Amino acid sequence: MLTRIDHIGIACADLDATAAFYRATYGFEVFHTEVNEEQGVREAMLRINGTDDGGASWIQLLQPLDPESPVGKWLAKNGEGVHHIAFGTADVDADAETARQAGVRVLYDTPRTGSMGSRITFLHPKDCHGVLTELVTAAPPKGVEGPSGH
Amino acid sequence: MLTRIDHIGIACADLDATAAFYRATYGFEVFHTEVNEEQGVREAMLRINGTDDGGASWIQLLQPLDPESPVGKWLAKNGEGVHHIAFGTADVDADAETARQAGVRVLYDTPRTGSMGSRITFLHPKDCHGVLTELVTAAPPKGVEGPSGH
Repeated sequence: MLTRIDHIGIACADLDATAAFYRATYGFEVFHTEVNEEQGVREAMLRINGTDDGGASWIQLLQPLDPESPVGKWLAKNGEGVHHIAFGTADVDADAETARQAGVRVLYDTPRTGSMGSRITFLHPKDCHGVLTELVTAAPPKGVEGPSGH
Repeated sequence: MLTRIDHIGIACADLDATAAFYRATYGFEVFHTEVNEEQGVREAMLRINGTDDGGASWIQLLQPLDPESPVGKWLAKNGEGVHHIAFGTADVDADAETARQAGVRVLYDTPRTGSMGSRITFLHPKDCHGVLTELVTAAPPKGVEGPSGH
């Protein structure tokens, strides 16, 4: 079950300049940065608020690592702007299957790794009224381990 | 101070069909619908989650009333998709002024009426790295009155 707006993914040409804009204009601070080679992006996560499912909502700034990456091609075509939206769930596998059963194309056979160790998949924008839509299950908080202690 | 992602505004050609998609695919229900003549839209609000500032995050579906309205022109140019994002604040006037001082063009001299009696303004997308950005103060809950009881 999808229980929150997890993040809004925004493509930008210059991650540092865009993060500086969000800080100066709105007071939003960068909480985390990382490079995701598989997704072809450098990204910054700005935590905006907590949510009543125990998670949080974020602005995710995305700078392509390469003009030929998916976000790089998107940026060349569209310019800077909202690239995708993401809904949070405790079980991305189950919600991806629900979407698939509803006739929506799911872009990955199995979820891949997203920001901060999350597991993510994407739904085809042409099946979602023009919106590239991500489903995401956040990584468990640090210190939360499985039954074996690992 | 901006304290939440208030909503994601999505432009669509057919409000009822798009709302049906969100219900069938994700289980999100329409909480409220209205026509905003000033904004030139018919809209549906889907409540996704509560936020730790006491508010909520929503998907806002927008169907233009007229092809010549701002959302109508946007839809003709871009097709269906994310039209704007909105941050929630207890004081839209103060945050609009902060943005103005930061050099961002604010589209209204004073806030106008948004969804469910909120007060809203917009920041120019060219000053916001390509993102049309709304600032919104939700209407007080019903039953919360001023000191005079009115």
